[in-house]
Amino acid sequence: MTRILVLNPNSSVDVTQSMNAALDLVRTPGGPEVVCATLQEGPPGIETQEHVESVVLPIARYFEANPADAYVIGCFSDPGLALARENLKRPVLGIAESAFHMATGLGRRFGIVAIKQGSIARHMRAVRSLGYMDRLAGDRPLDIGVTQMQGSGVVERIVEVGTELRDRDGADVLILGCASMGGYRSEIEDRLGLPVIDPTQAAVMRAMSTISLGYRQVA
Amino acid sequence: MTRILVLNPNSSVDVTQSMNAALDLVRTPGGPEVVCATLQEGPPGIETQEHVESVVLPIARYFEANPADAYVIGCFSDPGLALARENLKRPVLGIAESAFHMATGLGRRFGIVAIKQGSIARHMRAVRSLGYMDRLAGDRPLDIGVTQMQGSGVVERIVEVGTELRDRDGADVLILGCASMGGYRSEIEDRLGLPVIDPTQAAVMRAMSTISLGYRQVA
Amino acid sequence: MTRILVLNPNSSVDVTQSMNAALDLVRTPGGPEVVCATLQEGPPGIETQEHVESVVLPIARYFEANPADAYVIGCFSDPGLALARENLKRPVLGIAESAFHMATGLGRRFGIVAIKQGSIARHMRAVRSLGYMDRLAGDRPLDIGVTQMQGSGVVERIVEVGTELRDRDGADVLILGCASMGGYRSEIEDRLGLPVIDPTQAAVMRAMSTISLGYRQVA
Amino acid sequence: MTRILVLNPNSSVDVTQSMNAALDLVRTPGGPEVVCATLQEGPPGIETQEHVESVVLPIARYFEANPADAYVIGCFSDPGLALARENLKRPVLGIAESAFHMATGLGRRFGIVAIKQGSIARHMRAVRSLGYMDRLAGDRPLDIGVTQMQGSGVVERIVEVGTELRDRDGADVLILGCASMGGYRSEIEDRLGLPVIDPTQAAVMRAMSTISLGYRQVA
Amino acid sequence: MTRILVLNPNSSVDVTQSMNAALDLVRTPGGPEVVCATLQEGPPGIETQEHVESVVLPIARYFEANPADAYVIGCFSDPGLALARENLKRPVLGIAESAFHMATGLGRRFGIVAIKQGSIARHMRAVRSLGYMDRLAGDRPLDIGVTQMQGSGVVERIVEVGTELRDRDGADVLILGCASMGGYRSEIEDRLGLPVIDPTQAAVMRAMSTISLGYRQVA
Amino acid sequence: MTRILVLNPNSSVDVTQSMNAALDLVRTPGGPEVVCATLQEGPPGIETQEHVESVVLPIARYFEANPADAYVIGCFSDPGLALARENLKRPVLGIAESAFHMATGLGRRFGIVAIKQGSIARHMRAVRSLGYMDRLAGDRPLDIGVTQMQGSGVVERIVEVGTELRDRDGADVLILGCASMGGYRSEIEDRLGLPVIDPTQAAVMRAMSTISLGYRQVA
Repeated sequence: MTRILVLNPNSSVDVTQSMNAALDLVRTPGGPEVVCATLQEGPPGIETQEHVESVVLPIARYFEANPADAYVIGCFSDPGLALARENLKRPVLGIAESAFHMATGLGRRFGIVAIKQGSIARHMRAVRSLGYMDRLAGDRPLDIGVTQMQGSGVVERIVEVGTELRDRDGADVLILGCASMGGYRSEIEDRLGLPVIDPTQAAVMRAMSTISLGYRQVA
Repeated sequence: MTRILVLNPNSSVDVTQSMNAALDLVRTPGGPEVVCATLQEGPPGIETQEHVESVVLPIARYFEANPADAYVIGCFSDPGLALARENLKRPVLGIAESAFHMATGLGRRFGIVAIKQGSIARHMRAVRSLGYMDRLAGDRPLDIGVTQMQGSGVVERIVEVGTELRDRDGADVLILGCASMGGYRSEIEDRLGLPVIDPTQAAVMRAMSTISLGYRQVA
Repeated sequence: MTRILVLNPNSSVDVTQSMNAALDLVRTPGGPEVVCATLQEGPPGIETQEHVESVVLPIARYFEANPADAYVIGCFSDPGLALARENLKRPVLGIAESAFHMATGLGRRFGIVAIKQGSIARHMRAVRSLGYMDRLAGDRPLDIGVTQMQGSGVVERIVEVGTELRDRDGADVLILGCASMGGYRSEIEDRLGLPVIDPTQAAVMRAMSTISLGYRQVA
Repeated sequence: MTRILVLNPNSSVDVTQSMNAALDLVRTPGGPEVVCATLQEGPPGIETQEHVESVVLPIARYFEANPADAYVIGCFSDPGLALARENLKRPVLGIAESAFHMATGLGRRFGIVAIKQGSIARHMRAVRSLGYMDRLAGDRPLDIGVTQMQGSGVVERIVEVGTELRDRDGADVLILGCASMGGYRSEIEDRLGLPVIDPTQAAVMRAMSTISLGYRQVA
Repeated sequence: MTRILVLNPNSSVDVTQSMNAALDLVRTPGGPEVVCATLQEGPPGIETQEHVESVVLPIARYFEANPADAYVIGCFSDPGLALARENLKRPVLGIAESAFHMATGLGRRFGIVAIKQGSIARHMRAVRSLGYMDRLAGDRPLDIGVTQMQGSGVVERIVEVGTELRDRDGADVLILGCASMGGYRSEIEDRLGLPVIDPTQAAVMRAMSTISLGYRQVA
Repeated sequence: MTRILVLNPNSSVDVTQSMNAALDLVRTPGGPEVVCATLQEGPPGIETQEHVESVVLPIARYFEANPADAYVIGCFSDPGLALARENLKRPVLGIAESAFHMATGLGRRFGIVAIKQGSIARHMRAVRSLGYMDRLAGDRPLDIGVTQMQGSGVVERIVEVGTELRDRDGADVLILGCASMGGYRSEIEDRLGLPVIDPTQAAVMRAMSTISLGYRQVA
């Protein structure tokens, strides 16, 4: 049976559970098995460049020890994507890269709901490296910690930031810039009237499409 | 049951059959029904701007009369895409647009295997309008008629043109620039060692993903 | 005698008359004859994609039946431009394309005064396809119907929208995004202090230049 | 009567005469008077940056002393264009700028037939400054002196260089990169099958259009 | 001993003195001699295109008569840069070009503190010609004369304009758009918290680097 | 005394020695001390993504334990640049980034002499992320191992590859894409007639300039 492995590289099990719940949307009877795992040695949340770099090698080791038909790195900094792609023979998807790709197919200019101000420079490096700068409307922070993302008031704050991205920055598609916001997606879509991309859903769907169509991986 | 309607806007039933056969790859038990239809009033092949324009209104009328969960326009000129999108409340996918989108996710620069020299200016308008010019490696014609696409020698000619796109133009992904070449895809992939995109497969898969993820349509 | 045929593809004769009056500026004794005609089978105004598509073939048929030295399609959606260019052996000018071209020669960044919000996505496809996105300052709607363009209060509204394009968006040239606003041009120029392009005037002048210089048509 | 003043900033009277003859194409009975003059204090040909700079102030002084409705600087380095525009209240056209503008309206990518290798860096600064780099197919030198441009063998050499611009570089429009090649235009067009732009003709026509349409000058 | 000659092309000796004082920062014992000179025939300030053009040939003549290992043109309009580069065999640096280059290495998007509104069009031509438009955050004028730059209240006004460049335009690096503001640099840096580039310092440092590394000049 | 620390993140001492020798060019009496060190726990050469990632954390730890006024990461993959910049309060320079920055100031389009084919995808990610794609002429591999870079025949191969970058790709500046080629620089410059950038020299000079001018670091 086809199996897609989604690894949450932070050690917060509730983030993995949130991710896992949001993926029910793309699971189908007879379709690929979608398994979520937690990298126990990761930090509680990936909030600094030190956090990002500290999980790069562990992610590659985890994937090598746990074979699947496709791999998804469940963190919006796409840590270790280049390494996992070079080492493994199967498709490896980053959730940020997948969200940017999905967004450019859905609308003209996307807005990113970031967790913290400090992650925006990292996002910009990724957006530039993929050549999508002219499709970026804006990137605005919630200023909430990753581990507090399941608390009350979070939806209100996302709607507030999303409204600015839509009305000031001209975004016609929103990207939730973290693996832990999927549970809020439909409420945000209803309140903002825009397509909203949960990056983990987008990455898993892209993994499914790549497997189904049998495309060769380009480095 | 979810249903995706793929309309071949030319009247050549063998093109519809070729398209239909190539779509078996994305059909799954329990998955969406994928139906292919032929626009009987279309020309035998869409080779001129007159052909393109002559099917725009008939495509919209056909879709309005044959409701589905998503619609695919099965011609690489994407005739009537803007109209169908404006008129219908469901996702409408063009196969050229879908192929360009898939290609930008798979590699850095895509090459297009065109049927005829005369269609290249049309492709360029589409590529430019989507903002993908810096991802285009090249566009080279087979110089074979649409209705002769099922004949012998076609694969050899595609491989010849694909080799130029890969080696002279630097393409790392190929797009088959017609709805009728899907049957040759795997042989071409094997001989060229690159991912090869059949645009109809790409569009149907994109329709499936959009339905599955429940994204709102952006005009 | 040299003859330039300007076809208003909507059936509103007062729009044709307004267009015709604005063209007196470019008529000279001994210069080319500039004839305006109305496409009787067109809708009263071109406001939706359905309207655009419905006149594409009739425009081509009209031009084929009424030979001239150059043809101008008098609607800011440039309906049927690609078809008429492919079918006819003489220059064919779209008024939107001509306005964009004129604007890039006059200033750095142009603003478009659109009639309705719904036409902006169409404009964007055209601007992108021509490669002029980085010259576009903004596109803002009047939200007035095409058939009401000759009423009172229209100039005030255009000045209001033009002021936003100039002061918020940084436009140093304005384009009137409809064939029916030419009569207001000089008042708007005086009040805003910017060059203002009537697209039909720009297209006819471009037709005259092309004829005079004898340039070959590029597809 | 409306008067357009074209100044050849080099002192070679035969260049002025060649320019003048090529402008008969755009002169019409009742149309603007087009007068060509020679800057006697200029060098025999503008071939170095020193030549360019040496005529900047003299051109401005000449125009100030010889009022006209529009001014054309008849040298492909557009010497003194910014200064004349800032000092005069009437339209001032550079022939290189006008040729680039005309070319972008006629085709997708233009090729420049330069006189000498040494002028290409100057052309590139102008093309970049105008934002037309992605419309430039190539720029190739004849390696002939300006003062030898009326000799035999020149057409053969232009056709040779134009063929490379068309076939190797993908130009679909050619620009003659000097004020003295206008007399060869029609022969080159016939032999290459592309539109060929004489920059002085293009600039004078643009001056006529600007006067006729009454556009305000943007700095 | 290695010698770098910085020429102030306006005749205001206090501007030369201000420049000279700001260069103490880059002078080192045993390092290159950095000499500042005043072009006595220049205007008191370079504020118009006429001023710019009037010093082009005098700058070249001055450099030819006063040999050095590298030359810096101490005016933010970079007058005569192309000419001096073509005529001299040693490195010639423009202070605006050097500031843009330094800024692109320090941050993502730079803001320019211009002296007057009228110089902004000149800056834009330079920024476009160098290909740095997508790195420009904004360009805002102080509206103070060059000769009044040493007066009181100047720092307050620079901080006011710099704050707009930082907060409205998104600049993360500031460029002082004149040779006479270097003395205010550290106070502005402290108050705005951004790197602030004095263009003369940047150009002299670049001259030192080029000499030290022995790079060949590219035209 | 000011101190610049250059860390070779591979464990090959002869590479460090070659780097150290090439830096004599920028050392001056009374100038900053430039110290080269070897990361003993690094692999013998950085040739794969696994190698790159394996030294990211060790480089940060090394710099934290060995304070300096500026830090240079002596490997053309710029491993750990983002991390070191985020963690340290002093300037941190990558040698690839510094070479790209220097090259854009010296010429129009740079060519990269890569060691191996496999590193080109890494270079492209860096060039894209910095926004320099339109300044890149080409990137061609020597296909020689890092540890064999001091052997005979290396100069001939570099000249061969550099000639292709210059003549086929249009490079007017060359970058040596490895920390170990500095010793060959002057011979290559003489034979190719182009400026040739040794990335370590460029990075150290940039560190010196940044210290000397006292610029604040932007993340």
